[in-house]
Amino acid sequence: MTPQRVTLITLGVADLTRAKAFYAALGWEPTSETETVVFYQINGMVLGFFGLDSLAEDQGRSGATLGTGAMTLAQSFESEGEVDSAYAAALDAGATALKSPEKVFWGGYSGYYADPDGHVWEVAYNPFWPLNSDGSLTLPAE
Amino acid sequence: MTPQRVTLITLGVADLTRAKAFYAALGWEPTSETETVVFYQINGMVLGFFGLDSLAEDQGRSGATLGTGAMTLAQSFESEGEVDSAYAAALDAGATALKSPEKVFWGGYSGYYADPDGHVWEVAYNPFWPLNSDGSLTLPAE
Repeated sequence: MTPQRVTLITLGVADLTRAKAFYAALGWEPTSETETVVFYQINGMVLGFFGLDSLAEDQGRSGATLGTGAMTLAQSFESEGEVDSAYAAALDAGATALKSPEKVFWGGYSGYYADPDGHVWEVAYNPFWPLNSDGSLTLPAE
Repeated sequence: MTPQRVTLITLGVADLTRAKAFYAALGWEPTSETETVVFYQINGMVLGFFGLDSLAEDQGRSGATLGTGAMTLAQSFESEGEVDSAYAAALDAGATALKSPEKVFWGGYSGYYADPDGHVWEVAYNPFWPLNSDGSLTLPAE
């Protein structure tokens, strides 16, 4: 048995300096860092960046080529306008556009971009999932 | 500018029934689900499972083969014994062993496994990062 818990999301990056610059351009400030890793406090857990090669070695598969895209991270906002602003800020910071924000089948508004290492972010407004005041999300009772 | 926020982690899966069975074997209970998506409440956000093909389409790149491994999720525990138990539970549930838990260079204890879709999980004990009582993590002040 394991708890429904995530403590740390780690993104493997080819160039830590480039990754830090991209997220800095989005307004993110490292909470803790060394020469080889950088951590950002987020809601309820930590998001970290670590070299791709080091991450593969850490996983016990040195030299493996690690892939992206099958795990995505979403940021929710309070309005379509906030989604548009976040998407524009990401492209301005050097993100690759995947899908411009648009109304989607589940009743919300969503776009996708990839960061400089190909990590996929969704920016979304979901009228059925109001955020808590601290930006965290508690799923509504059904 | 965007907040340091993650609202939803989505794992693309080849077979939703298989994915649900794996996480059920770990003791996880869906908080909300439909025929095509399942969501679990976790600390501060939501973890969801969605078909790989649907996820690629959602990202605006229908037919793309999405890769795994460059983004990992870690669960932290309060002791090495809890890490060993979580690792054993994952293998019992059908996970692929990547690295058995062992003492690691940063002073903790960590192992890695892959879920049935290749999503990489770390199970770890980090004596420098005590968990909050609700299982969330606030990085210690430096």
